[in-house]
Amino acid sequence: MPLHPTHPTLADGYSPPALIRAYRGERPATTPVWFMRQAGRSLPEYRALRVGTDMLDSCLNPELASEITLQPVRRHGVDAGIFFSDIVIPVRLAGVDVRIVAGRGPVLENPVRSAADVRGLPPLDPAALSPIREAVAATVAQLGPTPLIGFAGAPYTLASYLVEGGPSKEQLKTRALMHSDPETWAALLIWCADITGAFLTAQIEAGASAGQLFDSWAGSLSLADYTAHVAPFSARALEPVRELGVPLVHFGVGTGELLGAMRDIEVDALGVDWRLPLDEAVRRVGPDVTLQGNIDPALLQAPWPVLEAHILDVLARGRAARAHVVNLGHGVPPDTDPGVLTRIVEFVHSRD
Amino acid sequence: MPLHPTHPTLADGYSPPALIRAYRGERPATTPVWFMRQAGRSLPEYRALRVGTDMLDSCLNPELASEITLQPVRRHGVDAGIFFSDIVIPVRLAGVDVRIVAGRGPVLENPVRSAADVRGLPPLDPAALSPIREAVAATVAQLGPTPLIGFAGAPYTLASYLVEGGPSKEQLKTRALMHSDPETWAALLIWCADITGAFLTAQIEAGASAGQLFDSWAGSLSLADYTAHVAPFSARALEPVRELGVPLVHFGVGTGELLGAMRDIEVDALGVDWRLPLDEAVRRVGPDVTLQGNIDPALLQAPWPVLEAHILDVLARGRAARAHVVNLGHGVPPDTDPGVLTRIVEFVHSRD
Repeated sequence: MPLHPTHPTLADGYSPPALIRAYRGERPATTPVWFMRQAGRSLPEYRALRVGTDMLDSCLNPELASEITLQPVRRHGVDAGIFFSDIVIPVRLAGVDVRIVAGRGPVLENPVRSAADVRGLPPLDPAALSPIREAVAATVAQLGPTPLIGFAGAPYTLASYLVEGGPSKEQLKTRALMHSDPETWAALLIWCADITGAFLTAQIEAGASAGQLFDSWAGSLSLADYTAHVAPFSARALEPVRELGVPLVHFGVGTGELLGAMRDIEVDALGVDWRLPLDEAVRRVGPDVTLQGNIDPALLQAPWPVLEAHILDVLARGRAARAHVVNLGHGVPPDTDPGVLTRIVEFVHSRD
Repeated sequence: MPLHPTHPTLADGYSPPALIRAYRGERPATTPVWFMRQAGRSLPEYRALRVGTDMLDSCLNPELASEITLQPVRRHGVDAGIFFSDIVIPVRLAGVDVRIVAGRGPVLENPVRSAADVRGLPPLDPAALSPIREAVAATVAQLGPTPLIGFAGAPYTLASYLVEGGPSKEQLKTRALMHSDPETWAALLIWCADITGAFLTAQIEAGASAGQLFDSWAGSLSLADYTAHVAPFSARALEPVRELGVPLVHFGVGTGELLGAMRDIEVDALGVDWRLPLDEAVRRVGPDVTLQGNIDPALLQAPWPVLEAHILDVLARGRAARAHVVNLGHGVPPDTDPGVLTRIVEFVHSRD
């Protein structure tokens, strides 16, 4: 399938960046590296920029969202930008009353728990996505050859926020609905898949070179529940995006037991959290997928020699995969010293 | 090894209760059932009793702790009492400034993060455990033939509270210390193992018939970290308890990948959370251990037919184990309808 017109193509004599080649299964001369949540709270320039602006408002301000996306690329020399946004942005753009409460996360005024609640969820007007398209286009224009990765939350994680009304440890109400009323569950997950798929599609169409689906809460599920009640909707979210021909990445926290089912959704790369060594991940998912990860975020606080030994171990185990994109095993913790991230990029780039 | 004098023995012509026989590997005529956190917030009689009393104070008031332990046994007809206490009680009894903040959990005034902090941790005076002994003795006297299970937190979970200064999602500081300063880590875990071992020992000596070690946070660890930096200290905590000859149970949340290493600590039973089917757990741990679990707490909110089908599935899969003690896959959620728990007990008892 052809790339979107904004993407350079091989026919232009263009060689794709290392990140894209790695996602496609090649091993570029230098191992690509970027960090989940590299855009945001760990950077003083981000905190300065955000003063006085609400989180979701900053995501919907194209100039701000673009600048925040670019900050870590400038500072760290990472191999990709990750579009600065929030998992609930498409929910907000559809017109649902959701806001981010500092220190807590996304909170909904009216949780979605019944068949009537689900029927009442408004459709997402494609026009509402224009601030997203605008921010992505501005970012891509400034990134030059560095690729931008599009960002979206997976349907299960979105549904969890909608049902619980806020963040929760084990998504009890969400998982109760899944089993108590499978029809309402399916209708809810279809709504989530369609808005988050449209959100990611808009980013790719505006120039992002890859897309990552984040399933933050999938780790609370048994393999059986994930396979039956979640994976089909993650696949649905990715369907329209796949047609655009860019590589797709799928990541969840605590999903070591689900990796095989996540691979079956047919993505180009799987993110692995810090719990599972990459060589063991390869044994679980087979050779036909690139792995992304999985430096333990806890070790960002350790003395450099300890962290360096860990990175070397991650790189060594990553050789078992067809290709490896270095990342953390979860997002950058807010109190991370940004200098450590820059040093990791330099170190990984110097190894090959 | 002989049971403590307060325990009835086979020599008395006494047949141990179903729970103890199941922990030992027998299959009693009726499958035993109890619920983690059965004592506490889900019961209105508990909430009435606790009015005006701080959480840790209620654990240290023998009369209150005993009454709270007995409430769910009276109400539900479960096969065991679980001693009402808190994981940080031995920390508090050693003289460390820790309190429970409502809606948050245990909070420490001064987190323990350096070698000097660890050296400054006070020893636990065995005399400080007398309210625990008193509460257990009073409870056992009232329980009659129903066994009491002793309660203690595993060293890693205790250490996490000490290092983080409160609950945390991924224990980043704790895991950073583990790798950055293994000597200080070992000293900290030894302190934790010894106080929590003494806490559990006191309960068994006062008449509890079994002991369960709760490793609430172990699920954030890779298998390699768990095996190298955590399991030896959990084993150390259980060593003095094992000599008392009662069955020991080990439980952690999200520890499907760690079950083999948890079994290697040599306990009689392993608790399994809701993520892993019990027959798959048997494949991982082998036939020489009893399994406990693993009804999904989310389904306590589902209509009875949905929950019943789930319980039947749990029971069917549990047949793969040498013996099975029915429990939830994690603690009773605070908003659980107590009537559902009673119905589960009746249902499980009616099945054999």
